[in-house]
Amino acid sequence: MNRFPTAQVLNVHERFFLIDCGEGTQLQLRRQRIKLGRLNHIFISHAHGDHLFGLFGLVATLNLLGQQSDIHIYGTKSLETTLQHFRENYWQDLRFEVIHHPINTKVNQVIFENNSMTVETIPLKHRIPTCGFLFKERPWKKNIIKSKIQEYNISVKDIQRIKEGENLILENGEIINNDKLTEKPFKSRSYAYCSDTAYNTKIIPIIENVDLLYHESTFLSKDASLAKSTGHSTAEQAAKIAREAKAGKLLLGHFSARYKNDSIFEEEAKKVFEESIVVNDGDQFPIPLSRNT
Amino acid sequence: MNRFPTAQVLNVHERFFLIDCGEGTQLQLRRQRIKLGRLNHIFISHAHGDHLFGLFGLVATLNLLGQQSDIHIYGTKSLETTLQHFRENYWQDLRFEVIHHPINTKVNQVIFENNSMTVETIPLKHRIPTCGFLFKERPWKKNIIKSKIQEYNISVKDIQRIKEGENLILENGEIINNDKLTEKPFKSRSYAYCSDTAYNTKIIPIIENVDLLYHESTFLSKDASLAKSTGHSTAEQAAKIAREAKAGKLLLGHFSARYKNDSIFEEEAKKVFEESIVVNDGDQFPIPLSRNT
Repeated sequence: MNRFPTAQVLNVHERFFLIDCGEGTQLQLRRQRIKLGRLNHIFISHAHGDHLFGLFGLVATLNLLGQQSDIHIYGTKSLETTLQHFRENYWQDLRFEVIHHPINTKVNQVIFENNSMTVETIPLKHRIPTCGFLFKERPWKKNIIKSKIQEYNISVKDIQRIKEGENLILENGEIINNDKLTEKPFKSRSYAYCSDTAYNTKIIPIIENVDLLYHESTFLSKDASLAKSTGHSTAEQAAKIAREAKAGKLLLGHFSARYKNDSIFEEEAKKVFEESIVVNDGDQFPIPLSRNT
Repeated sequence: MNRFPTAQVLNVHERFFLIDCGEGTQLQLRRQRIKLGRLNHIFISHAHGDHLFGLFGLVATLNLLGQQSDIHIYGTKSLETTLQHFRENYWQDLRFEVIHHPINTKVNQVIFENNSMTVETIPLKHRIPTCGFLFKERPWKKNIIKSKIQEYNISVKDIQRIKEGENLILENGEIINNDKLTEKPFKSRSYAYCSDTAYNTKIIPIIENVDLLYHESTFLSKDASLAKSTGHSTAEQAAKIAREAKAGKLLLGHFSARYKNDSIFEEEAKKVFEESIVVNDGDQFPIPLSRNT
């Protein structure tokens, strides 16, 4: 065991999104050779130290490394006083702004969107205001079959229209159906991050059909009452959420230090949901592209 | 390279004293299997993140692990607002107090004493108020030679007197000189911690004859002007301090990330002071006991 506290990096087309920032995050980022210059957005699920206390040093280090572009932090309102304390006492000489976007953890809403994806909050049940994050790729456009461009001498303008789903009308009036010109588009991929939380079936419709689900499993079933009283989940409960949400894969983490052996978490979860995996520091989980059928 | 930021543990007769507390300190303490229950005193040289940002999580973890006894922090006055921020926002449920003992970094004075040692401040020159710490064992009492106790049938009361240096007077009036009854006492050992600081010869009389000296060496001589402007030292300067102070050994650390190779620091220092050593995460340096001659 002896893991670092929580932090994850989501790589979306080589832009990096940091999810939670436990102590030691900057060390792990360096060890994993993540390009820090491509990291501008940090999502904080809740203001407990094991998800937050790496932020203070990370911001200082980004500055040392010559970062110029602003850092955007998405976290609960309570974070503001801490950010302000560090702005006033430790971050006086930053070349960039640390901008806080306070989020309401009680509702499911989009808090970020760009060209390639959206981020939604997932309301969670913990001892303090907490939410998870759902990252969704935007719909991919159809891919035009390259040989068809030559075959029909298709103009750039028409290529665009065909990608949007239109048919091609040849000069002789013949209509070539869109299906004959295009491949099915890639499926939009999604990732859901749910930590820390008690067992909460209300999140199931929000994360339905997610490709990859990280769900905390601090405890084993034999300590379910402890999980409930501390606002955490068991491996079995995490697996139930994954099964009901029809997730592609379930990643398990945030294990209590009381257990000496990780593999039991995987065993317990697999009884409910076969695609369950215990994660270790530095593990990577690519979500492969696949086409709609 | 890729080291953790600064933190050191001094083991004085199995009581542990933490010196600085950079991010990730609690992780390293666990990896080195330091008994956290024996750690109650934390000395912070200055309020820069790479010497401080591990404190917030360490205190929280000590509480999780069941710590009951108070934590005493020795640091600059400016630390108080940060400690108060964490007391109010993150350390509300501690079973112990986090007590701050503000120190004046501009003078050399004793700030801690117990049965076995004293701790003095070493005023340093850095960009913000900073001091080093000198840990000195108290003088050891003389050791009585065991065979002499039987030989002269010495009483417990007399043993105590002999250890203090007195002679033994036998019932027949004969005087046995103290030197014949005792071994020379152990030498008092000392450790000086000097980080961060520009080259500052004023510290030499304070740390004179120290057994083990840690002195920062952020830069190499070729970047001496950068060292000066940022309030740091070169390896050569650290070695000069060690030589002039007649230190036993010099430990070098706090290397700038601009250098890819540690060994150059040792090479540079050894030209001035042979007993120079580059330190790595987890290294231990015992100071062996030896008798006065």
